[in-house]
Amino acid sequence: MSETPFVAEATFHVRYAETDAQQIVHHASYIVYFEEGRSEYLRQQGTSYADFEKSGFFLAVTDVTAKYIKACRYDDKLTVRCHVSNARSRTIEFKYEIIHADTGELRVTGLTKHICLNRDGNIARMPEEWTKWV
Amino acid sequence: MSETPFVAEATFHVRYAETDAQQIVHHASYIVYFEEGRSEYLRQQGTSYADFEKSGFFLAVTDVTAKYIKACRYDDKLTVRCHVSNARSRTIEFKYEIIHADTGELRVTGLTKHICLNRDGNIARMPEEWTKWV
Amino acid sequence: MSETPFVAEATFHVRYAETDAQQIVHHASYIVYFEEGRSEYLRQQGTSYADFEKSGFFLAVTDVTAKYIKACRYDDKLTVRCHVSNARSRTIEFKYEIIHADTGELRVTGLTKHICLNRDGNIARMPEEWTKWV
Amino acid sequence: MSETPFVAEATFHVRYAETDAQQIVHHASYIVYFEEGRSEYLRQQGTSYADFEKSGFFLAVTDVTAKYIKACRYDDKLTVRCHVSNARSRTIEFKYEIIHADTGELRVTGLTKHICLNRDGNIARMPEEWTKWV
Repeated sequence: MSETPFVAEATFHVRYAETDAQQIVHHASYIVYFEEGRSEYLRQQGTSYADFEKSGFFLAVTDVTAKYIKACRYDDKLTVRCHVSNARSRTIEFKYEIIHADTGELRVTGLTKHICLNRDGNIARMPEEWTKWV
Repeated sequence: MSETPFVAEATFHVRYAETDAQQIVHHASYIVYFEEGRSEYLRQQGTSYADFEKSGFFLAVTDVTAKYIKACRYDDKLTVRCHVSNARSRTIEFKYEIIHADTGELRVTGLTKHICLNRDGNIARMPEEWTKWV
Repeated sequence: MSETPFVAEATFHVRYAETDAQQIVHHASYIVYFEEGRSEYLRQQGTSYADFEKSGFFLAVTDVTAKYIKACRYDDKLTVRCHVSNARSRTIEFKYEIIHADTGELRVTGLTKHICLNRDGNIARMPEEWTKWV
Repeated sequence: MSETPFVAEATFHVRYAETDAQQIVHHASYIVYFEEGRSEYLRQQGTSYADFEKSGFFLAVTDVTAKYIKACRYDDKLTVRCHVSNARSRTIEFKYEIIHADTGELRVTGLTKHICLNRDGNIARMPEEWTKWV
C-alpha cells in the first residue's frame, strides 16, 4: 500500500428522508454515506462493486465505527472522503471523513471492515485485480 | 374471493429513524409499513413471502398509491390492516389502512399491485397454493 | 401556469442500501428519489425547501402514486425529472419520471400532492414568492 | 449503577426493505434496530424518549460501533437486548446484542454513546428523573 493513499470524494445533498425528528441527519444515514464513499472509490478505480459481485465475490461488513462531531441538516451539501486504510488477502478496511462541502468543516468520521466471501458464503481470497488498487 | 376478506393486522411503534425534520413520520416510511402488513398477512395464512421466493417466484410491485390523512409521530403505536382486494392468475392487489392503535383513528390508506415473476424475471402464473387463501 | 412547464433533473447512482433481497431497488426508495427531484426543482428555482420551512411554512404530503415499469439495480445511474403539474393557493402537485441516465429508458413514473401548512399545523395560503415559479 | 443492569428486549421480524442485494439485512439497518432497543428500554422504564424531548432535552449520538457476527435475512425474528453500560451527568452509553429470537444465536453486537443537549443545542446535565433508572 502506498504511503499517500488514493482518496475518493463523493458530493451530494442531504435528502429530507435522511433527517429525523431532531431536525438533523439521522445517525444511521451516515453509514449509508460511507457506503456511497466506497462506491465512488471503486468507480474512480475504473471498476464497480457491482462487477465484484458479478465475478462471484461479496464483501461482507464485519465492523462499523462512526464518530459524530457536528450535526448536518436537510439540503446540506456534504462530501464523503474515502480511502483504503488496510488490505490483506481476505479482508479490506476503509476510512471515511464526511465534511460540509462549502466550509470544509469536519462532521463525521468512520471506519468499516469487510471480509471477502465467495458465492457459497465461505471466506475467500480477494481476486487479484481487486487487490492491485489498494 | 369471499365477500368478507381476511384482514391481517400488524402493530408496532414508530421508530425514530422513520421520522423526518417535520417531526412526523416520513411519507415513504408508510410504504414500508404497508409491506409489513403484507408480511403479516402471509404469516397469518401460515406461509411467508420468504417461502414464496424459495419456491422460485417473486412478487414485483407495479403500483403504489397512498393517501395521507393525518400525521404520525415517533413512538406512536400504529396498526396496519391489510387484505387482498383483487387476485388473478398472475397479479395480486392489497389494500391497507394504518390506524393509531390506541384511538383507532385512521391515518393513512393505500393500495399496492403486484405481478408474479419466475426466476428468469418473466411473468408467471402464481403457484396454486398461493391463490387459495385470497 | 405556463404551457411548457419547467422540468428539473437530478442525476445520481443507486445506493446499495436502496436495494432489497430481490436484488433490485426497493419500491419505497423511488418515493425518496421523487423527493430528491422536488428538492432539485426548488434549487434550480433559486430557492430551497429548507428556506420554505424557515419562513414558517411546511408542505405536507397528502397523496403519493407510483407506477413501476422496469426494475433498477445497484449503481445504476438514474435521472429523476420533476415538474409542477398543478398549483393552487394552498396545494401543489408534482409529477415525476425516473429514467436510466445512460439509455433514457423509462423506469418509474409518479405523482405527489402537497398541502401548505403553517407553524400551527393549519392549512395556509402559500407565500406569494413560492407561487411565482410554478 | 447496579451490578446486574436492567436489560430490555424488543422482538420484531426483519422487513423486506431492510435487506439489500446481498439478500441479507443491510448493515445500516442494525443501527436502527439498536435504536429500537433504546426505545424499548425507556418504555420498560415507564417513560419514553418522546417525553425526554418534550421536557426540552435531546440525546445526540456521538459514537456508534457495531460488530457483525452472522448475517440475518428477511422475515427472521430478531431480539435486540439493550442495557445502559455507562452513565454520567451529561452522557449515557448503551450496549446491544442482537440475537435470532428462535435459536438465541448471536448475530450483531454494538455500542452507542450519547450526550445530553438542551433546546439551544448546548451540552446540558440530564434531568434528575432520567438518571435514576440507570
